[in-house]
Amino acid sequence: MVQTDTTTWQGVTQKELGQAARNHGMQLEGLRYDVTPIGMHYLVIHWDIPAADETTWSVEVDGLVDRPLSLSMDDIRARPAVTRPVTMECAGNGRALMPPRAESQPWLLEAVGNAEWTGTPLPPILEDAGLRPDAMELIFTGADHGIQGEVEQDYRWGFSLADIVKDDVLLAYGLNGHPLPPQHGFPIRLLVPDWYGMCSVKWLRRITAVAEPFDGFQVSAYQRRQEPDGPGERVTRKAVRALMMPPGFSDFPARQRFVDAGMQELIGRAWSGWGHIDRVEVSVDGGATWSDAELGPKPESPSSWRSWSLDWDARPGERELLVRATDEAGNTQPTDAPWNYGGFMNNMPQRVSAVVR
Amino acid sequence: MVQTDTTTWQGVTQKELGQAARNHGMQLEGLRYDVTPIGMHYLVIHWDIPAADETTWSVEVDGLVDRPLSLSMDDIRARPAVTRPVTMECAGNGRALMPPRAESQPWLLEAVGNAEWTGTPLPPILEDAGLRPDAMELIFTGADHGIQGEVEQDYRWGFSLADIVKDDVLLAYGLNGHPLPPQHGFPIRLLVPDWYGMCSVKWLRRITAVAEPFDGFQVSAYQRRQEPDGPGERVTRKAVRALMMPPGFSDFPARQRFVDAGMQELIGRAWSGWGHIDRVEVSVDGGATWSDAELGPKPESPSSWRSWSLDWDARPGERELLVRATDEAGNTQPTDAPWNYGGFMNNMPQRVSAVVR
Repeated sequence: MVQTDTTTWQGVTQKELGQAARNHGMQLEGLRYDVTPIGMHYLVIHWDIPAADETTWSVEVDGLVDRPLSLSMDDIRARPAVTRPVTMECAGNGRALMPPRAESQPWLLEAVGNAEWTGTPLPPILEDAGLRPDAMELIFTGADHGIQGEVEQDYRWGFSLADIVKDDVLLAYGLNGHPLPPQHGFPIRLLVPDWYGMCSVKWLRRITAVAEPFDGFQVSAYQRRQEPDGPGERVTRKAVRALMMPPGFSDFPARQRFVDAGMQELIGRAWSGWGHIDRVEVSVDGGATWSDAELGPKPESPSSWRSWSLDWDARPGERELLVRATDEAGNTQPTDAPWNYGGFMNNMPQRVSAVVR
Repeated sequence: MVQTDTTTWQGVTQKELGQAARNHGMQLEGLRYDVTPIGMHYLVIHWDIPAADETTWSVEVDGLVDRPLSLSMDDIRARPAVTRPVTMECAGNGRALMPPRAESQPWLLEAVGNAEWTGTPLPPILEDAGLRPDAMELIFTGADHGIQGEVEQDYRWGFSLADIVKDDVLLAYGLNGHPLPPQHGFPIRLLVPDWYGMCSVKWLRRITAVAEPFDGFQVSAYQRRQEPDGPGERVTRKAVRALMMPPGFSDFPARQRFVDAGMQELIGRAWSGWGHIDRVEVSVDGGATWSDAELGPKPESPSSWRSWSLDWDARPGERELLVRATDEAGNTQPTDAPWNYGGFMNNMPQRVSAVVR
């Protein structure tokens, strides 16, 4: 049982607790809902939530463009609007289960949510601004400001044009039919559906076209490395993952599960940044054997999670349940995800221990 | 600086992290808002969030009553409705700053929020049911179920009639103008404005009038004890507390503060379960001297927090800021709150270290 393996567990430091007290996980009961209710969706806030007045807010589009823009919130809301479900996940989801780890937010498996986002597509805005032929990347700058790695900075992320000039990339101002709450980026944020959440810059202030690859702090920090300062591999799209809602009920504070013997319906959701989910498998014997779960309807968009279920004939005893998914690109969750210093992209199968009585 | 005193700090255990990953703190930037946005309000969920269908939900009123009631959500919403702001706080707020501690949710100082709750007052419901003369206490039972201290139980809290038959006690079904989200007790919960949050039973299913004092597990657990199983003192009303929004900006992941030299407005909120806030004092020199903050308007109800502000002439150097409040009953935050095993009611003044540059 990975979650209570005290041979690998390392106590959480005060810095990590300072993060865990602010950042929010989705209670795994949230897997019950197709659309994650506001307040259950996961949250990571790198520094502070900035104060924001939507009546004076603007998004600047500048750099290598023919017609720089300064868009008010009224301008943005007057543009064509789309609403779509998107599964957002933190690249550090699973970090605390892959020790030793860098000091950051110590997620177990709760850093996910599937909300209905409303916004306006990015590409027509870029057409209005007129990207110049020498533009190579776009840099998105948020209003959140702080120090990381001894660098004082506004939060920024950079993308190649091929990665970001896509119809499903939004400037989003609505969440589940409401204005964005402050903690999700009010009044406006970037939303990049297939990538991990860190690149969907919140409290968006500026979009800048540049001629060189952007090597900002965050892009450099979100890399899979074997050493803190070694060469890395960029974290981009969400790796395939399934989660189950732990069955039965729990104790406090250990959250060990207890399940009544007999037929139990196991349910959960699965997603990938590489396309639709094609298969979900469940093991009820610690990974020795696997059974195919029944998949729910294929969502309209591959950016939204897909439900799954499996009837389990729970026999008395200590049981260990696992779940893993495969996407249409053929990616499957690995038994052992490769370790990296930042604790990114740990998509090893979830393990749930349960006492069946 | 209490928050980084490594001589008293104890690493967070895996059980505590399992709690911290599910329970949500209010980022202290939330002190900026008079009404806490949904998703910023603190949350403690003892076991799991139960599934709930409001069309079949009922609240039973039974026990020592002449006319037992079974109230549907339509019945409850047809009754007179009131909306009022209430500051809710966890009794364990500050627990991680008062070691050694019992294994539970390791709060720093974020377990608070001030929402606009909508519901119907409790006393007329009890009149309709007809409390019998021998009724002495009311037991409130939620739909959340689990094991704690080796006792399998539904979540329950008991009150004397004098404590609970009050006009400001609500059966609440709305939060900030919306239906309760699942994590706050959908479709209905108890709301006891002046007490700590643990007694405002969520997912309310039953109100039972009994002739004996209720000695249920939770009432017994929420006691201030010097030994795990020793005699205790019940945790009831919120102790007086002020919090400040940490000024300037932070680093990641330590959340050390950095402030520009010059005039800075310090802001925050203060509350008490014993009446209105009468005074807020701030120290900018580690507690050596204190200045009175300016209080915001007295809220209509003493159950809602009160804003405060102070202009601070920030001089370069390392500074330690403290804040403490006094309520109209004369209660003041103590320099050293008495330790107890459960880590309850630690209302020592908040300390914020800042580097002024």
